[in-house]
Amino acid sequence: MGIKAFAPASIGNIGVGFDILGLALERPGDEVIARKSDTPGLRITKITGHQGKLPYEVEKNTAGVAALRLLEHLGETGRGIELEIHKKMPSGSGLGSSAASAAAAVLAVSELLRTGLSKREILPFACAGEAMVSGSFFADNVAPSLLGGIVLVRDNPTIDVHRLHVPRSLYATVVYPHLEVLTKSARAILKPDVSLEAFVRQSANLGGFVVGLFNSDFGLIGRSLTDEVIEPQRAHLIPGFYDVKSAALAQGVLGCSISGSGPSVFALSANSLAAENAGLAMQKAFALHHIESEIFVSVVNQEGAVIC
Amino acid sequence: MGIKAFAPASIGNIGVGFDILGLALERPGDEVIARKSDTPGLRITKITGHQGKLPYEVEKNTAGVAALRLLEHLGETGRGIELEIHKKMPSGSGLGSSAASAAAAVLAVSELLRTGLSKREILPFACAGEAMVSGSFFADNVAPSLLGGIVLVRDNPTIDVHRLHVPRSLYATVVYPHLEVLTKSARAILKPDVSLEAFVRQSANLGGFVVGLFNSDFGLIGRSLTDEVIEPQRAHLIPGFYDVKSAALAQGVLGCSISGSGPSVFALSANSLAAENAGLAMQKAFALHHIESEIFVSVVNQEGAVIC
Repeated sequence: MGIKAFAPASIGNIGVGFDILGLALERPGDEVIARKSDTPGLRITKITGHQGKLPYEVEKNTAGVAALRLLEHLGETGRGIELEIHKKMPSGSGLGSSAASAAAAVLAVSELLRTGLSKREILPFACAGEAMVSGSFFADNVAPSLLGGIVLVRDNPTIDVHRLHVPRSLYATVVYPHLEVLTKSARAILKPDVSLEAFVRQSANLGGFVVGLFNSDFGLIGRSLTDEVIEPQRAHLIPGFYDVKSAALAQGVLGCSISGSGPSVFALSANSLAAENAGLAMQKAFALHHIESEIFVSVVNQEGAVIC
Repeated sequence: MGIKAFAPASIGNIGVGFDILGLALERPGDEVIARKSDTPGLRITKITGHQGKLPYEVEKNTAGVAALRLLEHLGETGRGIELEIHKKMPSGSGLGSSAASAAAAVLAVSELLRTGLSKREILPFACAGEAMVSGSFFADNVAPSLLGGIVLVRDNPTIDVHRLHVPRSLYATVVYPHLEVLTKSARAILKPDVSLEAFVRQSANLGGFVVGLFNSDFGLIGRSLTDEVIEPQRAHLIPGFYDVKSAALAQGVLGCSISGSGPSVFALSANSLAAENAGLAMQKAFALHHIESEIFVSVVNQEGAVIC
């Protein structure tokens, strides 16, 4: 008997919160199945949808590391456990693929062993799995993928994360173009400094975005959803980005920017019609640049990772 | 018959929100009395408590300019109006002295002429008065002084300002040392850039502070109330600053930093006892540096400027 967990994709940064904000989508997402085995130790027995890229070695696999750190915490590393990883979302897409696998893995193993641990308690182990691939410790995808909602990461080392109020009828559109942008290179191109003026304006927009969420003030969310620090530096990594963004804005979305380190582009909308129309318009704009893409339209996922 | 308006002092920046956050105190504050006169035009007839520094020329006086801009808006510049300005707080203190005078002036004149304008509607004129002295247009003191509360300024040019939720029992302590720091020089010493790392951490703390206010989460407010961008650059303008801050933190305040561009130092606390003890400890720390100081302890002023 296995336990299957699903963990959703997420939009990192959300434009105004570089490295500190993340939003959980309804779909896509990854599934991890955990099973007890008579052979001691943790093993990965199956990976699907991985395009041959993901390693079976536990210590090199984000889901494997996440599960292992949980087992170490429990003093259960001798336990025979098999993991199946079913990647149902693209990696290198800016949608938190590795974070979803890590979140699903810890939830599946925790449930399999009936630990009684809360999601907050297993979050550090999912973060440790994510850290293995991304090279540093960021919770801005893992936290929303596991906990759900829109999450502010106040401090990564102490995993000081907070769910924000989410207005009803806030919709996310994500368009994933079939390009690959490596997180590490998207990070390497960033200038080491931000001008004081941009710092002030971006801080004001972050504050406005958070206040807009708490007050369900879509006008304020829209005025605040602007990234003048990171987006201008990364836009060139996504051919046609500004055309795609213009296409989204023309459909009346609240704002549009790069999801995580890209190449996926997201928009937030105050209703499903704008969200769906924006998706089609954004896909069309990518097509004019001869780039195929997939559309995901979703409310904010308030559950995060679930046993299914 | 005159109309007397009072507008309170305010804490600009609040540590985590350089140029974008402000908090209204109960006291001190300035009073402006507006009276009708048979002589056409706006005149300043009396200024008290000004230490000889404030000009009587309407166009050079922050309260005068604020009132004049309102009268221009109303098409009433020919009206005979006299203003008395009673400065009851120190200027150059980092407590928004000029903002308080501007806020009190527009409220007094608006009431005298029974304009029926809301505080939101007269805010731009108060900002214009403040702009005359500070050299640029910032609403982070004017908005809380006029509207009350803790205010986020998302955008100065459009005066896109928002009141944040304020937890009950949040207390502010301000200690004003008898030193003078000019806003313009405090601004001139700031480096033109912020490192990307500091930008991310400071953004996270701003986000945490706003979420902490909305959720009445004092622990989060305390962890977030840290300024690693501006405070380290301005601390040397205030002799003994770090001793004063340590003295406040030792009393269990949530956080402590520079009010506006200084030299006043503020602390926020979760109760009046910590706020009062911190004030005494901070005053003592200044005294050890041979600096006299005044203490103001206050809840957040939710009314802002009032007719009295």
